[in-house]
Amino acid sequence: MTVDVKKALNHKIKTIEYNLTRKDVALYAISLGCGRKNLKFVYEGSHDFSALPTIGVIFPGQMIVDVISEGIDGLEFDPMMLLHGEQELEILNEIPVEGVFVTESKITNLYDKGKGALLILQCITSEKSSGKPIFKNVFSFFIRGIGGFGGDRGPNEKAISIPKDRAPDAISRQSTSEDQAVIYRLAGGDLNPLHIDPEMSKIGGFKVPILHGLCTYGIASRGVLEHFCDNDPSRLKSIKTRFTKHVYPGETIETEMWKINPTTVLFQSKTNRDGSYVLSAGLAIIDPVKKGSL
Amino acid sequence: MTVDVKKALNHKIKTIEYNLTRKDVALYAISLGCGRKNLKFVYEGSHDFSALPTIGVIFPGQMIVDVISEGIDGLEFDPMMLLHGEQELEILNEIPVEGVFVTESKITNLYDKGKGALLILQCITSEKSSGKPIFKNVFSFFIRGIGGFGGDRGPNEKAISIPKDRAPDAISRQSTSEDQAVIYRLAGGDLNPLHIDPEMSKIGGFKVPILHGLCTYGIASRGVLEHFCDNDPSRLKSIKTRFTKHVYPGETIETEMWKINPTTVLFQSKTNRDGSYVLSAGLAIIDPVKKGSL
Repeated sequence: MTVDVKKALNHKIKTIEYNLTRKDVALYAISLGCGRKNLKFVYEGSHDFSALPTIGVIFPGQMIVDVISEGIDGLEFDPMMLLHGEQELEILNEIPVEGVFVTESKITNLYDKGKGALLILQCITSEKSSGKPIFKNVFSFFIRGIGGFGGDRGPNEKAISIPKDRAPDAISRQSTSEDQAVIYRLAGGDLNPLHIDPEMSKIGGFKVPILHGLCTYGIASRGVLEHFCDNDPSRLKSIKTRFTKHVYPGETIETEMWKINPTTVLFQSKTNRDGSYVLSAGLAIIDPVKKGSL
Repeated sequence: MTVDVKKALNHKIKTIEYNLTRKDVALYAISLGCGRKNLKFVYEGSHDFSALPTIGVIFPGQMIVDVISEGIDGLEFDPMMLLHGEQELEILNEIPVEGVFVTESKITNLYDKGKGALLILQCITSEKSSGKPIFKNVFSFFIRGIGGFGGDRGPNEKAISIPKDRAPDAISRQSTSEDQAVIYRLAGGDLNPLHIDPEMSKIGGFKVPILHGLCTYGIASRGVLEHFCDNDPSRLKSIKTRFTKHVYPGETIETEMWKINPTTVLFQSKTNRDGSYVLSAGLAIIDPVKKGSL
């Protein structure tokens, strides 16, 4: 295993196009547990039909799969050693419910964390017709076993500290079905067999195929949207979290949320399996102003 | 309301193309309740990945919606008075799991049933690349209020008689979720708001949006496939039924099946709402020979 930071940072990632349909928008919401009680997000004929903001994560999906399977210049690694550590999504402009989207991606950083390498990948997704940027995704991947190459350790970000002295301001509970991953994979742009093929999940050390981390992330985001944004997608500006443990389809995800100032909600999510946190250090930036209330 | 049979039979229906993806095939199976226990039908990476045979009904979906909303030459009617009475699907050749399909449709008959008109629409769906016909659909629509125009009453088909003297040879039970119609509409090519919009279903006289008849039909077909075809889609040759009552999403569909000779299975389906039959006069023609058993 060799690491050549300069080469890796210069690795070209192909620009991808995604033709989003209203059906894709509805299916994405369904894959996060929306249904007939959430017509705004699942019914293309609703007067206020809207995309859930975390739909932004689906556009780079196929590109991520390709990059991992085809390899990165200057970075030899076993794809099985790669973990999706953190996800950050910024919503830059109003989200259209259909159209062609272009995603441009680059590796912005490659840090040496000793036990492994931390690969930061940034993707900007724009509406093709207007050129307007809509989403900025930052994927953080931890690659076990290839650290110690003498590289920059990266900034020591101050960890987000969830209030310990008070109960959450809101809690959302979302049950998932045993087939949640089977649906999410069709909607979420990530066909990794780990989430459907029992042979693959066994190799990964799991008793059954696990739910996509980004599905749990989308579910947690629905909680923030509902409790602090009046279910208005345009009020969610960014949302970030750390993936700490796997979720098995069928478990209930409980998201605890604290509003620490008018624009900031902190959150963490656990499952009913054993109470372990599956998402931690969650941070959402919201627009505090209710639409039409000015 | 006027009826001109000759004009109606000459009404041209535009040929439509459908680009079927493996994702569509998986989503169709999911919309009939398949999940992680049915990898053959939901996981595009399975060695035996196959389409459920009733996927044949999705290809004419948009065309049907267009014909009903745009109108038929020589046939004035209120679309709200149209009922989907019967459905017959023949599988003519092995079903590809992806590709472009072409559907050619025509009105083959328009009968005068006194209280209404019976419109028979036939659709042949072929694989574009090979020209091979794959499906033949026959849709029977009953249009209330426009009968008595002095037309042919049509043949008096002998009704299929379900055995009264013996219990079914097999029973399949499939629960549906409250969001079954919300998913099915994305998979099944029928975006009629009756199945999602409470305002529309109220106008139709239903307490909530109803499940698609063709979803129930697909679910019943899964029962035939499982119990009499060893889950091998190539052994289902045709399947026909009559829609007798609506299903509300969330109900359990129980399909009773009788094998009356080596190639013929009769069936009917009821729901746990009040035991009413929702499908009647079901007839499936199967290939009795298990593959690999010769």
